[in-house]
Amino acid sequence: MTTDNKATMEPAKETARLEAFSDGVFAIAITLLILELQPPRLGQVSVSALLVGLAHLWPSYFAFLTSFGSILIMWVHHHAIFRLARKADAPLLFANGFLLLMVTIVPFPTAVVAQYLSTPAARAAAFFYAGIFFFLGLSFYVLLRVVLRQCTLSGPTIQRFRRGYRLGPPGYLIATLAAPLSAWVSLGICTLLWIYWGLMAMRLEPCEDDASAPR
Amino acid sequence: MTTDNKATMEPAKETARLEAFSDGVFAIAITLLILELQPPRLGQVSVSALLVGLAHLWPSYFAFLTSFGSILIMWVHHHAIFRLARKADAPLLFANGFLLLMVTIVPFPTAVVAQYLSTPAARAAAFFYAGIFFFLGLSFYVLLRVVLRQCTLSGPTIQRFRRGYRLGPPGYLIATLAAPLSAWVSLGICTLLWIYWGLMAMRLEPCEDDASAPR
Amino acid sequence: MTTDNKATMEPAKETARLEAFSDGVFAIAITLLILELQPPRLGQVSVSALLVGLAHLWPSYFAFLTSFGSILIMWVHHHAIFRLARKADAPLLFANGFLLLMVTIVPFPTAVVAQYLSTPAARAAAFFYAGIFFFLGLSFYVLLRVVLRQCTLSGPTIQRFRRGYRLGPPGYLIATLAAPLSAWVSLGICTLLWIYWGLMAMRLEPCEDDASAPR
Amino acid sequence: MTTDNKATMEPAKETARLEAFSDGVFAIAITLLILELQPPRLGQVSVSALLVGLAHLWPSYFAFLTSFGSILIMWVHHHAIFRLARKADAPLLFANGFLLLMVTIVPFPTAVVAQYLSTPAARAAAFFYAGIFFFLGLSFYVLLRVVLRQCTLSGPTIQRFRRGYRLGPPGYLIATLAAPLSAWVSLGICTLLWIYWGLMAMRLEPCEDDASAPR
Repeated sequence: MTTDNKATMEPAKETARLEAFSDGVFAIAITLLILELQPPRLGQVSVSALLVGLAHLWPSYFAFLTSFGSILIMWVHHHAIFRLARKADAPLLFANGFLLLMVTIVPFPTAVVAQYLSTPAARAAAFFYAGIFFFLGLSFYVLLRVVLRQCTLSGPTIQRFRRGYRLGPPGYLIATLAAPLSAWVSLGICTLLWIYWGLMAMRLEPCEDDASAPR
Repeated sequence: MTTDNKATMEPAKETARLEAFSDGVFAIAITLLILELQPPRLGQVSVSALLVGLAHLWPSYFAFLTSFGSILIMWVHHHAIFRLARKADAPLLFANGFLLLMVTIVPFPTAVVAQYLSTPAARAAAFFYAGIFFFLGLSFYVLLRVVLRQCTLSGPTIQRFRRGYRLGPPGYLIATLAAPLSAWVSLGICTLLWIYWGLMAMRLEPCEDDASAPR
Repeated sequence: MTTDNKATMEPAKETARLEAFSDGVFAIAITLLILELQPPRLGQVSVSALLVGLAHLWPSYFAFLTSFGSILIMWVHHHAIFRLARKADAPLLFANGFLLLMVTIVPFPTAVVAQYLSTPAARAAAFFYAGIFFFLGLSFYVLLRVVLRQCTLSGPTIQRFRRGYRLGPPGYLIATLAAPLSAWVSLGICTLLWIYWGLMAMRLEPCEDDASAPR
Repeated sequence: MTTDNKATMEPAKETARLEAFSDGVFAIAITLLILELQPPRLGQVSVSALLVGLAHLWPSYFAFLTSFGSILIMWVHHHAIFRLARKADAPLLFANGFLLLMVTIVPFPTAVVAQYLSTPAARAAAFFYAGIFFFLGLSFYVLLRVVLRQCTLSGPTIQRFRRGYRLGPPGYLIATLAAPLSAWVSLGICTLLWIYWGLMAMRLEPCEDDASAPR
């Protein structure tokens, strides 16, 4: 009985350090976003000038909020996917590495949008932002496929995962292609997508498939 | 007996990763504060000029210390609240996400205060700082309410929590409204509030309610 | 039996905090890399100017990607080496400290390459980058030797470790010496090396020696 | 027997999250040091100009290395002290908070030294650096005293702790007072101190007192 227990615990432990490392990267990437926000530089320093200066940073606030929301929801989903993972084999390491690469990149397109959303270059900034998130959506889809090859679970949660993640790459592709027409439509689609996955995450917890699966 | 034990351990484990992720965000946000402190740029480089330059950074030191103290005390309280949490359900995820959003924002108003506290725009900087902390106080109050809905504990600790956190939103609201009159009164209230919660935290530990609660 | 179990678990626990701390440093170093990437500053702000400006950052993208890949693979190897570690004694602490020193340095040569790869100073930047990675390769070799002195394991995995890591210092030395001739040959060797260790990492998992070793 | 075991494990668990949070702060502070190192800005971009520019950054390298060494050794000692801690009570929380405050500050005096060590303001920079480390030494001494009040251990390790830490505040005070005479003597003392504690750390492990103490 003890041996049995050890055998089933081992895989969980194997992915634990990978998950902890990923958590660290998520936590740092989400916190670094704030560094893009710098106090306004004022020509003339007064109470009203500072209030106006802070208000003029709205593209930075928007970029910060939508990137923060995206990374937070991605972290919740990453957690949900890793609960299905059985072993830290090479495909999982590489799929997870690709996803972490994309997550750490997020502060850069965020800074580009923050700096150029209120300028004539807004559409190029949105194009770049949505393009990066296309690869982010792709990396989640790849990670899910790698994990699902490890386990043979099926059920409503897995079906919801599949449907939800299949939406990512085409969704962000549309956002990218919409950018040359309108920066706001493009970034609006990006924002709707993480809100959608946020609502989806609400239904993933408490993950009944996982609990019912024989361990 | 083993099954029972597993059943009671599971919820604790469920919130463990959420707590570890939150800890990471707190640790990073508190350490990033120092990046706002930059060596003074001197017109003429000499021993006395550097000493004077370092002394002139006092608004930065004040802003750094009060933000550091606030985040540290908030971390202690976050820990205390999560000891009451029973499961990582959707409301907890979102309440905690809102709180983490506000925590990661802290370095930004800190930088604004550091840069403008010794200028004529001081009152606008204090208004912005206290306004952000109003939402921070609100997020703690929301998190406490969500957690208390999960468990039916009552007792002196819970009562102290309720009283202490109920103070947060109106306390910071007063600080925000006081800013147009005096930056120092506003920031003084913010400082007194985290010192108050610091003293409250001393009495929360070692948390007798938690220990006496049946597990 | 319980005593036995405790005795064998103790060493694992002793290195656990060292490993967790190292993981933190790896996670932060890999995420800080993105801070070197700054939005382009445009003379004239337009959609095409921003796209051209983003494209002109290719040396930064290359430097970011190769440093990200290097640190990620080094993390996987660090994990594999620490599975062999038996106790957190002074030699392990210092060998690991030397390695962490080199890992935290990586963002600096990365920034140098990002800034100067498309300039006439490219060869000096590559020389500096490869030179730092020479010490990084050396630190891994030293860590492996220290860990292998703790345990008397042998087998195909250990042999593969030895061969793979012995390649590090001379490999990066060649890259350093090649830099005065061609920046691209030098950085190309650095890139090939982490891809090589990446493929090697695929074969290290799931680490059959470790599993067969009596615990 | 199970109840007994739980009772003795509980205190360890209580300080575990405090220790993990502290580890996070140490790991971030040590990794943020590299951000002070910026690629040299060259008037004329050429291979030799970049090499000269990189060589001229030696004050930054020195400041980086001595701060890195200091934080790493402090982390090892923090670990050793916390192995003696029995419960996360209010005095421990505040002593640890004071220590973390000083640790997160380290990148700032490091940047000051990096920027001014090769200028006529060197002595002021060294004075500031050593002064900050005086409070750091003090915070370690306070933490040790708080922890020793929790447990009644005695033996060679405790004696070594006491002697070693009693050296901190006066050692850094001498370094601070020596700064007006010579920046190098001052920083040299700071460097010798962390090397001394590094050698002391070698003898603390594997901590025989701790092992012999009844658990």
